[in-house]
Amino acid sequence: MDEPLFVIPLWADLTAVGLGGVQGALFASGFRGQRRLDLLGVAIIGIVMGMGGGLIRDMLLNVQPATLQSNWYLLTATIAALVGMLLAGVFARVNAVIVGLDALVIGLFGAFGTSKALALGLPIVPAIFVGVCSAVGGGILRDVMMGLPVAIMHVGSLYAVAAGAGCLVLAVADAFGAPIIASAIAGVAVTTVIRLLAVIFDVSLPEQRALHRRKVAVETTGIPVVRPDAEA
Amino acid sequence: MDEPLFVIPLWADLTAVGLGGVQGALFASGFRGQRRLDLLGVAIIGIVMGMGGGLIRDMLLNVQPATLQSNWYLLTATIAALVGMLLAGVFARVNAVIVGLDALVIGLFGAFGTSKALALGLPIVPAIFVGVCSAVGGGILRDVMMGLPVAIMHVGSLYAVAAGAGCLVLAVADAFGAPIIASAIAGVAVTTVIRLLAVIFDVSLPEQRALHRRKVAVETTGIPVVRPDAEA
Amino acid sequence: MDEPLFVIPLWADLTAVGLGGVQGALFASGFRGQRRLDLLGVAIIGIVMGMGGGLIRDMLLNVQPATLQSNWYLLTATIAALVGMLLAGVFARVNAVIVGLDALVIGLFGAFGTSKALALGLPIVPAIFVGVCSAVGGGILRDVMMGLPVAIMHVGSLYAVAAGAGCLVLAVADAFGAPIIASAIAGVAVTTVIRLLAVIFDVSLPEQRALHRRKVAVETTGIPVVRPDAEA
Repeated sequence: MDEPLFVIPLWADLTAVGLGGVQGALFASGFRGQRRLDLLGVAIIGIVMGMGGGLIRDMLLNVQPATLQSNWYLLTATIAALVGMLLAGVFARVNAVIVGLDALVIGLFGAFGTSKALALGLPIVPAIFVGVCSAVGGGILRDVMMGLPVAIMHVGSLYAVAAGAGCLVLAVADAFGAPIIASAIAGVAVTTVIRLLAVIFDVSLPEQRALHRRKVAVETTGIPVVRPDAEA
Repeated sequence: MDEPLFVIPLWADLTAVGLGGVQGALFASGFRGQRRLDLLGVAIIGIVMGMGGGLIRDMLLNVQPATLQSNWYLLTATIAALVGMLLAGVFARVNAVIVGLDALVIGLFGAFGTSKALALGLPIVPAIFVGVCSAVGGGILRDVMMGLPVAIMHVGSLYAVAAGAGCLVLAVADAFGAPIIASAIAGVAVTTVIRLLAVIFDVSLPEQRALHRRKVAVETTGIPVVRPDAEA
Repeated sequence: MDEPLFVIPLWADLTAVGLGGVQGALFASGFRGQRRLDLLGVAIIGIVMGMGGGLIRDMLLNVQPATLQSNWYLLTATIAALVGMLLAGVFARVNAVIVGLDALVIGLFGAFGTSKALALGLPIVPAIFVGVCSAVGGGILRDVMMGLPVAIMHVGSLYAVAAGAGCLVLAVADAFGAPIIASAIAGVAVTTVIRLLAVIFDVSLPEQRALHRRKVAVETTGIPVVRPDAEA
């Protein structure tokens, strides 16, 4: 009743959940902040990254969250988070893996979000919006829970651009009558490639900025307390 | 089916979305923190402020988000965010515009939230609650995404009071049989006026506190790490 | 229609809301951070802690939020928050009360979340997940709104473990055909006892870590800006 036209195949959905879980746990394992995460904290981030995109999508669409209709989603996300923790210990340098998985995961969540929204009859613009929220929502939850600056607001604007471009390609292909599977594959590919190219060609920029920021942080205690209200 | 009794007219809803988008982009453009926002970050905040109130309202009411049923909401929010960015460049001092728009926007979102909740049959107290959440929810999302202290918890308590008073007036007028349009206009007016008066008469207080806080911040590194647990 | 099999009795639900409200206001009253909360801020945290668990549960389950179907929930949460503020002034050392109430409240919200999810037909694993989210969700909202590190990610992992264990006991007892009331009481007891034991036996550990962290914070300005990306 909820999804009359199109159901994302369980294996595809679980693949995205699993990759998200691995990526989240890898990311959280590598975290060196003021407060280290314990093992359960790492697992929670893995589960948030695996489940978050789908939950946000279904809450925006006002349908039963698909990720809560079967035991498999949470089991997959949890096992994936454990795998991610092990991988983080095995590999000395996991950054390339984190970035690559991340690009693929935002592509998958974006494509699933947009296609489910289109299947439920949403117009093209909000369908793309739902896709982008699915793609970046897990990362926003992760950053908020870890106390990090929200990535898509700063260095990560490329996230939103990459996710938006992929969702747009999917929605336009669908509007022109392309089969949904082909449209979704094209959408995932566009998002992943844009995101990877962005990382590869910007790879030195964020660190320079980070150095600059570190200095500013020392001088000002680093908290963004200054609000526009106090300035104009 | 979802809103049998009352539908907020599209033009009114889009006006609130547009004003919220302009206000959000103006606010974000003026932001001088540790990490400046790029252009896309400013646009995201504009969209969050334009769309956030309506999304939170409809998720609390468990209905299809009205803002996702038509292309116009996102297009309006996006264009409004672009207008807000341009205005931020044109005017040297936009603070009065930001504060004025903000007062009007929380009035509009509060009135729409309360009247939709009443139309769906909610009792008066939760209807006011939904209105207040619609009014202040966009700002909470904005602050969390920008890494700012959540305004309604600190200097911005007046937000919640102003929004609550306007929603109360609307709900009471409705309960006494006043036409919903008149009730809504009264609610918006009450919220806007209270908020503006609060800003005008408190205008020097926040800055003094801000100075004081800056010093405290330097001494303590400025992070609220002390939890009640560690104190009693 | 939404809850065909099981309705949480209003008095039980209101008890959880009231205890949550008292606990939230006690917690917020004791807060000594960079920015003190004003009275309304304390009340907002009380309401968030009283209402948050139920709202998150019902949004995950895609049903009308029970807390918005009657005036009593918000009135109870608000009055409880006022009581919490008064108690904070009366008692010199409220920490034991805060911790004890907190253990009971996460037990109650976890049990209500899991049993409502099971009554709506969710499989056992997502039903436990909904219970855990109900139990810890209010605290996450509180921490985000107060600008604190999210407790369940750090010292508070024991939260999630305690909540999960109680929800698991409830769900397993229910699966073996135990009456839901008995299962729920067992679940609440397990969560509360685990959480209290964890606090009692770990009581010196967090402070040592806190001292260490304080020093680190001074050296680095204390903001977790280092992301894994910048490290590998």
